Amino acid sequence: MSSNRDIETLIDMMAKLPGLGPRSARRAVLHLIRKRALLLAPLSEMMQTVAATARECLNCGNIGTGDICDICSSEVRANGILCVVEDVADLWAMERSGVFKGRYHVLGGTLSALDSVGPDQLRIPRLVDRVKSEGITEVILALNATVDGQTTAHYIADELEGLATLSSLAQGVPIGGELDYLDDGTITAALNARKRL
Amino acid sequence: MSSNRDIETLIDMMAKLPGLGPRSARRAVLHLIRKRALLLAPLSEMMQTVAATARECLNCGNIGTGDICDICSSEVRANGILCVVEDVADLWAMERSGVFKGRYHVLGGTLSALDSVGPDQLRIPRLVDRVKSEGITEVILALNATVDGQTTAHYIADELEGLATLSSLAQGVPIGGELDYLDDGTITAALNARKRL
Repeated sequence: MSSNRDIETLIDMMAKLPGLGPRSARRAVLHLIRKRALLLAPLSEMMQTVAATARECLNCGNIGTGDICDICSSEVRANGILCVVEDVADLWAMERSGVFKGRYHVLGGTLSALDSVGPDQLRIPRLVDRVKSEGITEVILALNATVDGQTTAHYIADELEGLATLSSLAQGVPIGGELDYLDDGTITAALNARKRL
Repeated sequence: MSSNRDIETLIDMMAKLPGLGPRSARRAVLHLIRKRALLLAPLSEMMQTVAATARECLNCGNIGTGDICDICSSEVRANGILCVVEDVADLWAMERSGVFKGRYHVLGGTLSALDSVGPDQLRIPRLVDRVKSEGITEVILALNATVDGQTTAHYIADELEGLATLSSLAQGVPIGGELDYLDDGTITAALNARKRL
């Protein structure tokens, strides 16, 4: 491209974002430049604001703008019940469903022997502290249904044994799911956890 | 989402970019926040720079950082041959192929009766001026092979008749294309323009 070096750099930066590639980055940047007063300048300013203020909550690991996030500092959410998730994206997904009204704990990943991620690289010691000190009576392990997620869930279940009631998300057929398109593992899990009508 | 309002605003802004939706915007923003020192701040600064400097070339309509773009002001590119494209994205695509060494003219769209886009909303009068004043001897009409693109090509061909040699991009089977996957129109065009070996 013979266009300006800054524009090329911007495209390269955008192309490295997850879900974007060179082609979509070019389209996005061109769109931004065409509407630069309306889009590019405000987007840049908002990024600057977020870059300056966003940080991890010292208590739960969620992303917010203070030392303690909105959920931890909320006065209307239930105390005593904690939902453990791998990642902030998982927390956001739980929040979108709007059904959980307790507090969260974000591990920041899963245990992984291959990537040599141990309990101390995650927020597991902090989780045990919180369960003891915040009077948590129920812990929901909302970890992903992957091998690493389930390994981590088992490890946490061992650590928290006797401290709180533990549960995990139900596994089965997703709402709107068609059996024909489901993998064998999901069908097996749904069959094993069948409910009497 | 109960996370911070600024972060939500940033996600909403990113989600409006072409090629991104709410889900990929969330992933991108989370990725940016995790690496905010390394990615978010530099990206924001580069956007600010581009927002402040990017503008349309007064001569050809390409996007650059001065009143006259790099291609128009280049001293090594051939004079006298002009490639007419609809859009800056098309100019970039031509430049990636690296095979054209002349100058460009970006129309900024196509004639469209439905959207009431006439010749004066595009850079067509400017194109006629350039052909007359810059001593252009060949004009390549590299417009998209759509109805509006071809209508525009015909209109320009009429306007420029007698002023310069006109040509358009060849139509046919794309390199690596399999006949089985091509539409009927492309096969018809390729057959009509068949070349004697």
